[in-house]
Amino acid sequence: MNEDSLVRALTRDLPQGVGTLLGPGDDSAVVAAPDGRLTVTTDILLDGVHFRDAWSTGFDVGWRLAAQNLADAAAMGAVPRFLVVALAGPPERLAGPWASDFACGLSDYCRHWGTGVVGGDLAAGPVLVASGTALGDLEGRPAVTRGGAQVGDSVALSATGAAAPGVSGDARPVPGGPAHWALGGSAGGLAWLESQASGQGDAVGGQTAGAAGDRSGDGVTDGLADGLAQAAVAAYLRPDPLLGLGKDAALAGATAMMDVSDGLGKDASRLAVASGVRLSIDPGCPALDGPRRHWAPLARALGCDPCDWVLGGGEDHAFLATFPAGASLPDGWGVIGQVLAPGPDGPGVTFRGARSQESGWDHFA
Amino acid sequence: MNEDSLVRALTRDLPQGVGTLLGPGDDSAVVAAPDGRLTVTTDILLDGVHFRDAWSTGFDVGWRLAAQNLADAAAMGAVPRFLVVALAGPPERLAGPWASDFACGLSDYCRHWGTGVVGGDLAAGPVLVASGTALGDLEGRPAVTRGGAQVGDSVALSATGAAAPGVSGDARPVPGGPAHWALGGSAGGLAWLESQASGQGDAVGGQTAGAAGDRSGDGVTDGLADGLAQAAVAAYLRPDPLLGLGKDAALAGATAMMDVSDGLGKDASRLAVASGVRLSIDPGCPALDGPRRHWAPLARALGCDPCDWVLGGGEDHAFLATFPAGASLPDGWGVIGQVLAPGPDGPGVTFRGARSQESGWDHFA
Repeated sequence: MNEDSLVRALTRDLPQGVGTLLGPGDDSAVVAAPDGRLTVTTDILLDGVHFRDAWSTGFDVGWRLAAQNLADAAAMGAVPRFLVVALAGPPERLAGPWASDFACGLSDYCRHWGTGVVGGDLAAGPVLVASGTALGDLEGRPAVTRGGAQVGDSVALSATGAAAPGVSGDARPVPGGPAHWALGGSAGGLAWLESQASGQGDAVGGQTAGAAGDRSGDGVTDGLADGLAQAAVAAYLRPDPLLGLGKDAALAGATAMMDVSDGLGKDASRLAVASGVRLSIDPGCPALDGPRRHWAPLARALGCDPCDWVLGGGEDHAFLATFPAGASLPDGWGVIGQVLAPGPDGPGVTFRGARSQESGWDHFA
Repeated sequence: MNEDSLVRALTRDLPQGVGTLLGPGDDSAVVAAPDGRLTVTTDILLDGVHFRDAWSTGFDVGWRLAAQNLADAAAMGAVPRFLVVALAGPPERLAGPWASDFACGLSDYCRHWGTGVVGGDLAAGPVLVASGTALGDLEGRPAVTRGGAQVGDSVALSATGAAAPGVSGDARPVPGGPAHWALGGSAGGLAWLESQASGQGDAVGGQTAGAAGDRSGDGVTDGLADGLAQAAVAAYLRPDPLLGLGKDAALAGATAMMDVSDGLGKDASRLAVASGVRLSIDPGCPALDGPRRHWAPLARALGCDPCDWVLGGGEDHAFLATFPAGASLPDGWGVIGQVLAPGPDGPGVTFRGARSQESGWDHFA
């Protein structure tokens, strides 16, 4: 199989969506920008950093690439319309089932949201790497940036899709599942997979390192923690941002918005700094305390603090936004705090009055 | 240094160009699409595959990433307006001078062509990887695809920028140098660097493997081959597509066009197949025979056939286009053949009547 035939095979069933004027196969694609603007964002995934080849299938990686790129368009209040993808890895992986599985994961997620996969690049390389760039349509609305939060606004968090059962099997989850607040699930799923790989899984059940890929939970003795582990692993492997909630927030008058990808504490700090305000967040509110209590049995079994997952865990891709006081929040959004004037030490985030230490993911810390 | 401060440092001096409505720093950038469309293309570079860390500086890699992505926009007849970049690598490289040098190379090339670097992603990873996505403005013109060549058209090749002297030093080349036809230079430069690394450089001069980074040519005894080696290495390290020639071709009525990145033989075949025609190319024409004769002394010293470089070498990023018979070609374009009806074995390319074997780069061959 040569490069051209491989590209043809992988691009054959990609969704094209509305507004794709020229799809894959030329030097560039051509896409429509009905209001004369497009949002553009890029995100890269590397094996061993953003996913682990031993845990994630090609489908998972394709899904994740789409989900997190499209979430960055939705976080501006845009409708994600187009995605281009560059994929590199060992030739035997790209010419084999891994790459077609990747294309399926990418396509399933994009097709659900009406997003076209309009082009890409394919290269041999020593490590699996996938890079995406998503373009979004603001439909005539102003972009909702991180910098517009006003003192007196309420701070709100969006739900994500429900983690689908059977994520490891052939039964594919449907993107955009029912809304639920389960921030921290991705961090919990990663913690569970790591515990299995290091043999500490005995704390949860009888699984060993070699069974980390067995996501069905056979042999786990604590039924509650086992069920939570399955849901958390699903949240880690296939994050399911509810992209429509970004547009809903924009229509409801959101003053600032962002995708929570590095942890609520860290990302809220970024929004606070961009807006020059203090975000006072109440960890006891239902949208945060609910997930904490939800994940608590799994966290206990793993010797973790569920607060760390909820406030510091990234990659659930919930949206964080601020709304004018008195605005009625759209479905799928819950209040988690208030916007205050910055304190003497400048803009930032406080949890129950204590300044956040900005826990969360940093590639270079 | 944490991720946010590193991103701020690297994005501080990026050119923004015309039409950047919101630059780096948010979940997405927002860019203008004046005629209601944009072209979009993506290309990825990996250490050890598309460049070699031992030979290419950060500046070279940034330059190359910009050049080859922007060339894919120009090859549609578009003006490349915006670029987003994802960069991954070992933290000590990204937090050190390599990454700022990368940003300089990227910026120098983009600034010359008025292209804004509007956003990106930065991640720690085991290997240096850079991925770019370029957006182009068609300015109301139809896109020039690979599929529009008509029987009777002439086939033409564009010049590239002159390889700049002093490419290894602090004296940075200026993008968009004087036009010249030197297809094959990139392949020649790679062959020279490989010969130096394997110790065969004695065929050219006295250099050894350890001196592959010494691009000044000290110690090379064959003055002619040495000068050519410098120019070829410059062409390999910093390909200089003359982006404006893409728009010029579109304005002159080009019926089909593409970027030559995998070798003239292979890429011409792709255009022929997309258009359903035969491209009859004359290797004796000045735009092809000139480069062959130009590189011949270096090729001889390295035991290579300069025809392989000219017809099979990629990454010079010249443009290949077809023009209606009788159209007067814009400056910087030279005729290399004719478009004929496909033969009994279908669309393809012939060189002096012999069917091309499609030599050129294939990641999966």
